[in-house]
Amino acid sequence: MANFFEDNADLRWYFTRGLDWGALVRASEHLPLTGPYAPTSADAPKSIDEAKELFGDIARAIGELAGDEIAPHAAEIDRDGVIFEGGEARFPTRLEAVTKAVSQMDLHGLCVPRELGGMNAPMALYYLTSEIFARADVSVMAHHGFHGGMALAMLLFSIREGSTELDADGRITKTRFEKEIREIVAGKAWGCMDITEPDAGSDMAKLRAKAVLGDDGVWRVTGQKIFITSGHGKYHFVIARSEDTKDSDDPMAGLKGLSMFLVPTYEDLPDGTRKRVVSLDRVEEKLGHHASVTAALSFDAAPAHLIGERGQGFEYMLLLMNGARVGVGFECIGLCEAAVRLAEAYARERVSMGKTIDRHEMIADYLDEMRTDVRGLRALAAHATFHEEMGQKLDLRRRARKAEDPELDRAIRSHRARSRRATPLLKYLAAEKAVEMARRCVQIHGGVGYTTEYGAEKLLRDAMVMPIYEGTSQIQSLMAMKDTLSAVMKRPRAFVQRSADARMRAISSRDALERRVARLQVLESDVVRLLLVRTASDKLRSVREAPITEWVGTLSKNWNPKRDFAFAMLHAERLTRVLSDVLIAELLLEQRREDPAREELLVRWLERAEPRCRYLHDEIESRGQRLLDELAQAEAPASRAAE
Amino acid sequence: MANFFEDNADLRWYFTRGLDWGALVRASEHLPLTGPYAPTSADAPKSIDEAKELFGDIARAIGELAGDEIAPHAAEIDRDGVIFEGGEARFPTRLEAVTKAVSQMDLHGLCVPRELGGMNAPMALYYLTSEIFARADVSVMAHHGFHGGMALAMLLFSIREGSTELDADGRITKTRFEKEIREIVAGKAWGCMDITEPDAGSDMAKLRAKAVLGDDGVWRVTGQKIFITSGHGKYHFVIARSEDTKDSDDPMAGLKGLSMFLVPTYEDLPDGTRKRVVSLDRVEEKLGHHASVTAALSFDAAPAHLIGERGQGFEYMLLLMNGARVGVGFECIGLCEAAVRLAEAYARERVSMGKTIDRHEMIADYLDEMRTDVRGLRALAAHATFHEEMGQKLDLRRRARKAEDPELDRAIRSHRARSRRATPLLKYLAAEKAVEMARRCVQIHGGVGYTTEYGAEKLLRDAMVMPIYEGTSQIQSLMAMKDTLSAVMKRPRAFVQRSADARMRAISSRDALERRVARLQVLESDVVRLLLVRTASDKLRSVREAPITEWVGTLSKNWNPKRDFAFAMLHAERLTRVLSDVLIAELLLEQRREDPAREELLVRWLERAEPRCRYLHDEIESRGQRLLDELAQAEAPASRAAE
Repeated sequence: MANFFEDNADLRWYFTRGLDWGALVRASEHLPLTGPYAPTSADAPKSIDEAKELFGDIARAIGELAGDEIAPHAAEIDRDGVIFEGGEARFPTRLEAVTKAVSQMDLHGLCVPRELGGMNAPMALYYLTSEIFARADVSVMAHHGFHGGMALAMLLFSIREGSTELDADGRITKTRFEKEIREIVAGKAWGCMDITEPDAGSDMAKLRAKAVLGDDGVWRVTGQKIFITSGHGKYHFVIARSEDTKDSDDPMAGLKGLSMFLVPTYEDLPDGTRKRVVSLDRVEEKLGHHASVTAALSFDAAPAHLIGERGQGFEYMLLLMNGARVGVGFECIGLCEAAVRLAEAYARERVSMGKTIDRHEMIADYLDEMRTDVRGLRALAAHATFHEEMGQKLDLRRRARKAEDPELDRAIRSHRARSRRATPLLKYLAAEKAVEMARRCVQIHGGVGYTTEYGAEKLLRDAMVMPIYEGTSQIQSLMAMKDTLSAVMKRPRAFVQRSADARMRAISSRDALERRVARLQVLESDVVRLLLVRTASDKLRSVREAPITEWVGTLSKNWNPKRDFAFAMLHAERLTRVLSDVLIAELLLEQRREDPAREELLVRWLERAEPRCRYLHDEIESRGQRLLDELAQAEAPASRAAE
Repeated sequence: MANFFEDNADLRWYFTRGLDWGALVRASEHLPLTGPYAPTSADAPKSIDEAKELFGDIARAIGELAGDEIAPHAAEIDRDGVIFEGGEARFPTRLEAVTKAVSQMDLHGLCVPRELGGMNAPMALYYLTSEIFARADVSVMAHHGFHGGMALAMLLFSIREGSTELDADGRITKTRFEKEIREIVAGKAWGCMDITEPDAGSDMAKLRAKAVLGDDGVWRVTGQKIFITSGHGKYHFVIARSEDTKDSDDPMAGLKGLSMFLVPTYEDLPDGTRKRVVSLDRVEEKLGHHASVTAALSFDAAPAHLIGERGQGFEYMLLLMNGARVGVGFECIGLCEAAVRLAEAYARERVSMGKTIDRHEMIADYLDEMRTDVRGLRALAAHATFHEEMGQKLDLRRRARKAEDPELDRAIRSHRARSRRATPLLKYLAAEKAVEMARRCVQIHGGVGYTTEYGAEKLLRDAMVMPIYEGTSQIQSLMAMKDTLSAVMKRPRAFVQRSADARMRAISSRDALERRVARLQVLESDVVRLLLVRTASDKLRSVREAPITEWVGTLSKNWNPKRDFAFAMLHAERLTRVLSDVLIAELLLEQRREDPAREELLVRWLERAEPRCRYLHDEIESRGQRLLDELAQAEAPASRAAE
């Protein structure tokens, strides 16, 4: 009788005080964000408190399912894997039963609007509960996500391309993929997102799958896709090349030639039977995630429906990207939660040198860090999901209203900026921590951790893909670095002002913890300044002496982002770690304002973040030139040979 | 046509300039350590140069075997595992063929004295070449090690207990296990070391397997052993409890009741058949090392031969401990070498964003660190193996001569101290790096690294046991910490002197690199001082003001190592990392004196070691008290309840 929600006080806190459910429910119910809550739909929650109670009940039911029906079978599911036979993938008995149990909870429509048969719950509820699924088994969680997530993607794409009609409140009156969405909500189908190809992973500009518009007005897609999670489903969003935009000077030019398509797996033949037009070539044999189908697919002139306009494929992909990465963030948190609990349970039982090993100082320190990290990550994830959802829902509201609303526009920009800032940090740190915690869980188990019997090694195998899929840790770091430096270069005064504020608070705040957080912010701005100065000084030595407000003009001339950003690219991961540490500290400080009981978590977080950020600053300050020189030399073999 | 020796310039350097083969050969050939080299045995190398050439030839042959006959089959060997049937473990066809190819090279007697059918080569040759085997496959390397290693253990035990007769030079004229040793040298048997039990891993005081001396004068062992590598062999060294030494106040008291036994797996029956008396209950299903038998054994009154005296089991185990840990160090280095090469090869081919990914700054930085680390580790390993061997061989010489020889005693003490200092650092760092590098190798491969096809995930699976077996990373850290702090407390003046010397060199040395190494040494002594001050101040606040030379007297009273060392135990791993960083820097500085071409490695090492050591110092200085307070509170639940 395990309940993965009930037993998790930190997670439960987000259902009571830690998230602004009022805003999320108002945004979801098309209601004003301020003033009294007065629902206009009979099916809407009667009050925010009622909504919170309902969401808690759903989480509790999922917690029970995860604890009682999934987790106990995770080892078996991992052992059995999936069956690939006759060009189709299917689930073995146990996995099928577990998937059915999940389906029977009727969760696929959790966040789908009521107009389309869903429950219209905030997406935050989906994300927070996906952590619970992932704690039980990441494969099951991932597959579950390709139901409701796909339905919402269909809706989002349709709204964006203008094929959805909304009433003035933002309720849907008509939408392009209604049939497919209702099918998914009913649990009868799922879909997947087909991007990666054998020679194009992080580098999407190199995608080669081709889309051709026939004389019959039908698009047809031809090519290969690999590493497609849940790729044995009925619907595929496929990115394919519809335009030739090659440019030998710009390796990114290829992005502009991509378009987005919906490709059904089967074609309905006139005789009533159906024919597979997307062929499932292979199910990858992977280190972990054995119950998740990772498919290699080929498309041979498969009929396809263009989404939006030609050449907008990359933009459409970006619409889902943040959400998908927030999803992986929660998946990682679930795995971390599993790792720390498994490790704690073992350490509390295992006696060595006269006491249980959880009281051995080094092990206690590991467990303390794991516990602190998982809670810090959850704060970051909750923040990211809140702003991602508010940004999306308010954007829908703006589209529905059509009238000018500068305040709404400002709110959307602010939510989007926060989501965009937090998401790569979350994806980066949660994935890295999933690997680290799973590794520590094995280590704390000692010899038995290395055997297949205790479940620790499974967590490690499952964790290893987290820093790879949905954008590698390196890609997240580059994104965070570029966003951070570009923001400063665009608005140098704001940066200077923020740094000065932080410096002031670091000295003068009456609250010691606020001073400590401010000192971290100062360290962050020092790191950013360091990277900018180095980036700038590589370009133009004189700028070092100029006031930062004049940089942008000087630097925007003759800019080569590839070469000029080399130093910042080398240190992108370190910067990302600093940004994550500081943002989490800021969020925990806010949480303490809301609830004084959160203070101990803030203290624990700062204790480790402070020396770590000093170290990262030190590394960025002291290292890198030798390696960059070596790389530059290697880039110029001709001139070397001539020497 | 791969040769894992020829292609490795850094490894080859240790065969030409990097190791004092002269000293090793003289020690092995029972010759004076100084003066002209004049071999007294017709089979001995004619000169040190001839010896080095011979050793290089052997390494080259092993390099070819590893590159051509083992590595290409590593994936298959991993997939097939071992067969456990009818209470016996056996190898599948491919593994059997590989094992046979290794056996045919006649290497089991590589380091066994000529008198016993061996080649009498220095043990350093075995260790350095075991890196080559491990690079091809760690399971094959490990199993190989349980042949010659076991023969040498038999010899060492017999010498120690006095059942080996030596001539005045140290050559063996008679030894207790001659039959078994010759059998192993001929490739007809191997053995294993049976220590761990279900409830006793790191905590050997809790071992329960029982040894009883029968009225017939025969010892019999009863009990269970688990995680026994190559436990399907013919000979077992078994640690079992022969005396009751329980003491409720001292959890370590149990160690004194252990004895060491040789237990043959089979008993020869009068009818000429043989009967298994050590039963093989299970072969563990592990994350990796699939071609290595990890056995669960039970002993049911199995006839056993006592080694040494009753109650000396733990001491005999300690005789092998350093060597075994050095062996794992080289095993890890082989795995690291495999990881960095696999990662480099992939990164040099994989194009992303317009260039191969080895030129992407972040990936280049990973590869640069991996390359630097593997070479730094090799310097540490070569140092450890040299002193371990010299200590053992000179000890044999002293035992043979019997006459007083204070100079020889001093040399033995010095070698042993260096080996003892280096070994836990090597085992700790090499194991941690094996995991880190294998993880990075997977990450650099991206999606394909997560599939079973490219070999990256196998390296990670194999690496994960390194920080667990032969003493966990935590045990290594505790050993290094205790040795370091005890040494200072025993000889505080020497510590003060060494710190002052380092401080002086850090300022006044004319050589910039020597100044940098000296600054690291200063940092190390600051860390040690910090731990001692905290340890001491917990005990007696006043000592903080007293000169360090007076501490030992004050502190030796009423000492409780458990409680008083809590702060140092919490930070043991961080101290160990500092000690490793500094020792490797010292060794690389020495190597540069020998060969100026080694300077670039020293520079690379310092570049990363410097900020890291500053960080570790910072962490030790700023963290720990909160957690220790929590642990102390948890230890006193009664008093808390009373509050």
